[in-house]
Amino acid sequence: MTTAYEQLTSTFATLDAIEGSLSMLNWDMQTMMPSGGAEARSRQMATLKGLAHQTIADPRVGDWLDAAEADADLGEWERANVVEMRRMWRQRAGLDADLVRAFSETGTRCTMVWREARAANDFAMLQPVLTEMFDRVRDMGAAMSDLTGLSPYDALMDTFEPTMTAARVTELFAPLEDRLPDLVAAVLDKQAAAAPAPVAEGPFAIDAQRAVGVELMGALGFDFDHGRLDISHHPFCGGVVGDVRITTRYDESDFSSAMMGVLHETGHALYEANRPADWLGQPVSVARSMGVHESQSLFVEMQLCRSRAFLTWAAPKIAAGLGRAGDPGLSPDALIASAQRVQRGLIRVDADEVTYPLHVMLRFRLEQALVAGDLDVADLPGAWTEAMESLVGVTPPSDAMGCMQDIHWMDGAVGYFPSYTLGAMLAAQLFEQVDEAIGGVDACVARGDFAPVIGWLRENVHAVGSRYSTDELVRRATGRPLDASAFLAHVERRYLREER
Amino acid sequence: MTTAYEQLTSTFATLDAIEGSLSMLNWDMQTMMPSGGAEARSRQMATLKGLAHQTIADPRVGDWLDAAEADADLGEWERANVVEMRRMWRQRAGLDADLVRAFSETGTRCTMVWREARAANDFAMLQPVLTEMFDRVRDMGAAMSDLTGLSPYDALMDTFEPTMTAARVTELFAPLEDRLPDLVAAVLDKQAAAAPAPVAEGPFAIDAQRAVGVELMGALGFDFDHGRLDISHHPFCGGVVGDVRITTRYDESDFSSAMMGVLHETGHALYEANRPADWLGQPVSVARSMGVHESQSLFVEMQLCRSRAFLTWAAPKIAAGLGRAGDPGLSPDALIASAQRVQRGLIRVDADEVTYPLHVMLRFRLEQALVAGDLDVADLPGAWTEAMESLVGVTPPSDAMGCMQDIHWMDGAVGYFPSYTLGAMLAAQLFEQVDEAIGGVDACVARGDFAPVIGWLRENVHAVGSRYSTDELVRRATGRPLDASAFLAHVERRYLREER
Repeated sequence: MTTAYEQLTSTFATLDAIEGSLSMLNWDMQTMMPSGGAEARSRQMATLKGLAHQTIADPRVGDWLDAAEADADLGEWERANVVEMRRMWRQRAGLDADLVRAFSETGTRCTMVWREARAANDFAMLQPVLTEMFDRVRDMGAAMSDLTGLSPYDALMDTFEPTMTAARVTELFAPLEDRLPDLVAAVLDKQAAAAPAPVAEGPFAIDAQRAVGVELMGALGFDFDHGRLDISHHPFCGGVVGDVRITTRYDESDFSSAMMGVLHETGHALYEANRPADWLGQPVSVARSMGVHESQSLFVEMQLCRSRAFLTWAAPKIAAGLGRAGDPGLSPDALIASAQRVQRGLIRVDADEVTYPLHVMLRFRLEQALVAGDLDVADLPGAWTEAMESLVGVTPPSDAMGCMQDIHWMDGAVGYFPSYTLGAMLAAQLFEQVDEAIGGVDACVARGDFAPVIGWLRENVHAVGSRYSTDELVRRATGRPLDASAFLAHVERRYLREER
Repeated sequence: MTTAYEQLTSTFATLDAIEGSLSMLNWDMQTMMPSGGAEARSRQMATLKGLAHQTIADPRVGDWLDAAEADADLGEWERANVVEMRRMWRQRAGLDADLVRAFSETGTRCTMVWREARAANDFAMLQPVLTEMFDRVRDMGAAMSDLTGLSPYDALMDTFEPTMTAARVTELFAPLEDRLPDLVAAVLDKQAAAAPAPVAEGPFAIDAQRAVGVELMGALGFDFDHGRLDISHHPFCGGVVGDVRITTRYDESDFSSAMMGVLHETGHALYEANRPADWLGQPVSVARSMGVHESQSLFVEMQLCRSRAFLTWAAPKIAAGLGRAGDPGLSPDALIASAQRVQRGLIRVDADEVTYPLHVMLRFRLEQALVAGDLDVADLPGAWTEAMESLVGVTPPSDAMGCMQDIHWMDGAVGYFPSYTLGAMLAAQLFEQVDEAIGGVDACVARGDFAPVIGWLRENVHAVGSRYSTDELVRRATGRPLDASAFLAHVERRYLREER
């Protein structure tokens, strides 16, 4: 007889295959599809999304979940799998279809208006539809609150960062809020006093930039028999396990943005590639959370590849790959100066790792107020400017470079921003641990031997999928719960003591 | 109230979106996917095929079809749509699932053994599984015969070439069988007496070959905002309406095979791109048959692009594109001599248009005998050799270059081969008609103005989809039923009188 658990694994395997198909169709849409394919593609994707929904919303799934939760014969992984099935089912089948449709429809419309309003720097154009979007976000928060027993904001955040709450984020961010303003000031003073480093002038041929990216990806363990590197307007990591595809965007005048972008996406890709092989297609094999995913990209980009050791090792390869051997702008010191440059900036996605958390705290603060109804969308521009001045120390010259810079809220993604900084904190904490565990990361890097580092991540993060909660994963990997100490120590070590 | 017809259009639109997704996943698999993606891709495609089957096998579809067939309010296109829905439903939902599974499983296994057996030139290795395959083909033919009232072979052929029968193919092929042997001999005598033309020597850079292909595709009206040209091991035309993707394979020593392949696939692509826009997603919008599809690729490749007029117009573009201006091997005369070369060959896919029908007749004859049980698979090599000698006038030195050269039978595709020659006949008949209708194709070609030619095809073939039966389509387009006269006249004109 087929058990309830077996029925569930078969249902979720079907769901996974449909979503894998959607992932490939989305990759194609971003990288290969001619513009005229948009209409057919949107019909294809809407149809597959509908079939995915039908699959998980099958009325029998709820009964199977009840039965599987009561099944005493299941092992640890199976039980963890059922927990993740229940979470996925609640989020995707538990909500009222009209609510989901209204949320998604408003997000599509708000995103379209936003593109135009941002280009025209016209917040008044955006305000009505963004107000509507936050109404729908509150509806969604209330509905998810009913399902989970969490507060509305926590329930929204739970979809990106299971078990995380606003209270815990506030507590985790407190030391950053306390220390970062002084640290930023000290780093800026130090950098202002240093002699300016030479800068390599473009153009850098795109083929050559690509070859450098491919070489570094290969060194880090990216397997081109199981993945690709392509071009898209917005870089991302897509595809499926066994066929992980990352993208970048090249700028002929600046090789480092694509290179660092490729290294960042390689961090995501290694996580995806190394998810638990025995559980593929099942919810327990999925990456733990957005924050843990970001920890892997930031581990590779920030902790590893912007380090003195890495750039010293990579500099001759980069110079040779770009056909610029001997260029003083591509010496290790010049590359390090550029990769570790700190600036008070307006734009989150351009921020260095030291000021980045300040951009996140601003958004975390404002989105909680918006969801609670303590801040009106009409008052967002003023609140944004005030927060930027107090947190980052700069004043946006326009709303386009202020509260209209990010797509997240436009699409209803509220509760997502904290994951970026949780990821940065976790990356630092994991790095501290692997450094100790393998007896010094820098020595491996100097030999160009990344296998011990990536192997440690695979074992402790990638290959456990969603077997443990984030807290448990972090405790098992690093011996303590997540906190800000490793990140702050890293900032001091790299930017004040110049040791890394 | 939703009518039965509306229920059907919605069901078939879902089916079309799933199959469009499958088409993109298949394109990706052939062109982009790294080898390590095979396992995940096969799970994705199997899942989507299962969902497609569920969609069309919904038990309500049969009732809706009965009701729609009795609906007096439907217009002409709607009625034609219902006819095609019924045909599709019968083929895909009407068959016993075990029979379909056994057929498909045997095909997969036979194809795998065939690859090995062909490489080893070992017919004995293939014989047991090919015998099994023809057993399954006979089972399938019997089941389809029950559904359609056709004979088993006709029922099999009906899936590729609706309403065509073996008796009618025999009648259509008779003039070819009668005339081609003498024509081939006369052409070969003539070509042997001519001075040899200069030949351009490679290597021809792949980028340059691609640029030539893109230029010619563009001139013929291929819209790169609605399609792509890529590389795959086996050239094909894939994608969906709005996003039609063709592929080719480049050989640095021979630019003409990729160029002619690209032009051939462009003919298929223009058909796909111009299917009836108001009926997309519905069965009536689908290309009429394999034979009509082949008529479009052969119209473009054989009728149009191997002509004196086309090659005279294209020669300077080809020479410039390949960076070989002034190369005598790329003069119009040299290109014409090469494109119109006739040879008694062993391999169907390498055959010129004059000898090609002989290869098809051989297969048509043998596959009827195999299905009827008048020929045993064990006796196939001998029967093949005998037929090659009598029809083409050559003796295969091996079974690999004889009865094991084609994939079709290995996969159970029996009844397909005639479509190639039906397509060649129709291409000639359509060309004769458009030549008259627009007052001379060659004059347009000499100006590089292909719009009148392609426009005529669009109106008379592409844009009618499956609105009419093949017979009716041909009659409406050319004023008479399909016959071999235009093809034979074309061969005489091009190869004996050297007028085209």
